[in-house]
Amino acid sequence: MGYALVLKYAYTKKKRWFSLIRVGIFGYGNLGRGVELSIKQNPDMTLVAVFTRRDPSTVKILTEGVGVYHVDSVLDFKDKIDVMVLCGGSATDLPVQTPFLAEHFNVVDSFDTHAKIPNHFENVDPVSKKAGKVAIISVGWDPGMFSLNRLMASCILVDGKDYTFWGKGVSQGHSDAIRRINGVIDAKQYTIPVEEALESVRAGENPELTTRQKHTRLCYVVAEDDADLNRIENEIKTMPNYFSDYDTTVNFISLEELKREHSGIPHGGVVIRSGKTGKDLENTHIIEYKLKLDSNPEFTASVIVAYARAAYRMNQEGACGCKTVFDIAPAYLSPKDGAELRKSFL
Amino acid sequence: MGYALVLKYAYTKKKRWFSLIRVGIFGYGNLGRGVELSIKQNPDMTLVAVFTRRDPSTVKILTEGVGVYHVDSVLDFKDKIDVMVLCGGSATDLPVQTPFLAEHFNVVDSFDTHAKIPNHFENVDPVSKKAGKVAIISVGWDPGMFSLNRLMASCILVDGKDYTFWGKGVSQGHSDAIRRINGVIDAKQYTIPVEEALESVRAGENPELTTRQKHTRLCYVVAEDDADLNRIENEIKTMPNYFSDYDTTVNFISLEELKREHSGIPHGGVVIRSGKTGKDLENTHIIEYKLKLDSNPEFTASVIVAYARAAYRMNQEGACGCKTVFDIAPAYLSPKDGAELRKSFL
Repeated sequence: MGYALVLKYAYTKKKRWFSLIRVGIFGYGNLGRGVELSIKQNPDMTLVAVFTRRDPSTVKILTEGVGVYHVDSVLDFKDKIDVMVLCGGSATDLPVQTPFLAEHFNVVDSFDTHAKIPNHFENVDPVSKKAGKVAIISVGWDPGMFSLNRLMASCILVDGKDYTFWGKGVSQGHSDAIRRINGVIDAKQYTIPVEEALESVRAGENPELTTRQKHTRLCYVVAEDDADLNRIENEIKTMPNYFSDYDTTVNFISLEELKREHSGIPHGGVVIRSGKTGKDLENTHIIEYKLKLDSNPEFTASVIVAYARAAYRMNQEGACGCKTVFDIAPAYLSPKDGAELRKSFL
Repeated sequence: MGYALVLKYAYTKKKRWFSLIRVGIFGYGNLGRGVELSIKQNPDMTLVAVFTRRDPSTVKILTEGVGVYHVDSVLDFKDKIDVMVLCGGSATDLPVQTPFLAEHFNVVDSFDTHAKIPNHFENVDPVSKKAGKVAIISVGWDPGMFSLNRLMASCILVDGKDYTFWGKGVSQGHSDAIRRINGVIDAKQYTIPVEEALESVRAGENPELTTRQKHTRLCYVVAEDDADLNRIENEIKTMPNYFSDYDTTVNFISLEELKREHSGIPHGGVVIRSGKTGKDLENTHIIEYKLKLDSNPEFTASVIVAYARAAYRMNQEGACGCKTVFDIAPAYLSPKDGAELRKSFL
């Protein structure tokens, strides 16, 4: 087989050899590239192969000496990859790919259609159990780290209320929706939390917030020269599901300005739980988890790679079946052993 | 035995009977009272007994029908308590009590002398393993939730830097230190993070911060009528370890004002990791976990009670030995099952 020699062992500062975790990337878009970059930051992991539906000769990756293969050849790598990271989309890719690959590999995916997660779990769990592999689904920051914080905060503050705000950040779905409007060349949409709503939640006021009161939407749109800007603005602002329930601002700009000022993919958000304790519930507590991300796909990828380590390590200990972030003891995310973690992080 | 009848089963909204988790409280100060209050907020748990070193007839608790017993009778409860929550101090109580009780019960403690945690673990682990019980040590918010966030953030953002700030909140240790000064009747000390330092960290500037640059100390002191206030202020500000490395403000107030304005035990703080990803590490990400707590002991107790549930559930599945928050999959903290969690929290 023509693929690069994989160094399966590395030598640590503590002067012992350890086995590298051999990772495969299945799907090479923004997320796949993020996973590739993250693997470079983790010295206990090594990239073995990238799989693509495109012609492999047209796909250039960042890691020297690592091969790109067509997805059809993935099963040739059954014994050469410890964890396969799935980087496809949630709409049509992952519902098929995750159950298929979970039969042969430990896998991690970032399936993010919240309402369909229970169904996805049911499709993946029996397959991975039968194969004796670990499949961790819906990893990232939401679902993922935000879910974890919602769960843990609700277990600690039993009498309380949860809030999730997203942004400031780019919503790909909303940007795409604008691009589909007649006369629009390109567009970027930012979701922005409403500062007054955030402050009220942080003050423990437990407000009831409508959709409109939580987020605003800010759009930068490049229109064709002869387009009717009023019509486009109106079509955006009245678009059901995407914009009609929000206060939306539309700015028309040039393609040059869009490329110069809005080419990044920042995102972030905050999960807050406000809860009460005490004899008469007289004490208020606020738990807040906040992310501010320059690159949404690179951060998501970094979370996924940490959970890829967990998938491998848990499988080494005999675990199998479908898991989510709720089922993973945090120690599995780290390359350090228990004694080191207790000493440095507790 | 004279203790109250314990209803071991409860009837849920879903019309099924389930077994209540029977909890004992060992030590009844602020933390013990917080645990008692938290158990009331968790319908799957029931308080069985409170143990004290004092004369039990002098200890009045908040839960009707539950007995208070002398610590010497604790082993009579071996088969009547599913988890024992240890509410003693880290200096002299827990180093003895946790290994002793871990031989007979699943236990949770809040041992918080960071440097001695590895040693405490080594003392508890063999005992609890031999007994087939689960012992979770060092639970609370720091160590505890802050530790968890330090660990997870460092696994996600491998190239980065950690910051922990405490406050605004009351430090019992610093308040006690002031009270020991000649001429001081009472005192309260607040630890306050320096806003400029926080902002610099949040901006991803990765500053190197000295002790003085991170926190200030604010003291409210009640002095004897004829005391030399200048001397007291000077003794506070120059006290090694406690104050000499900080910018400290000393306010002399009346006992009435201290009781009226400073009787609470608020605390909180923030753990921030600032890290970089990308081909040239060009993207910065900030993960922030923040607590704002009206009552430090009641919040700590709420964390402990969630982990008491985990101790019981993990032991039911056959786990034993000493654990920390790093070793507990978050799902164990919840009374809900996996399918419910995936549906409601992911």
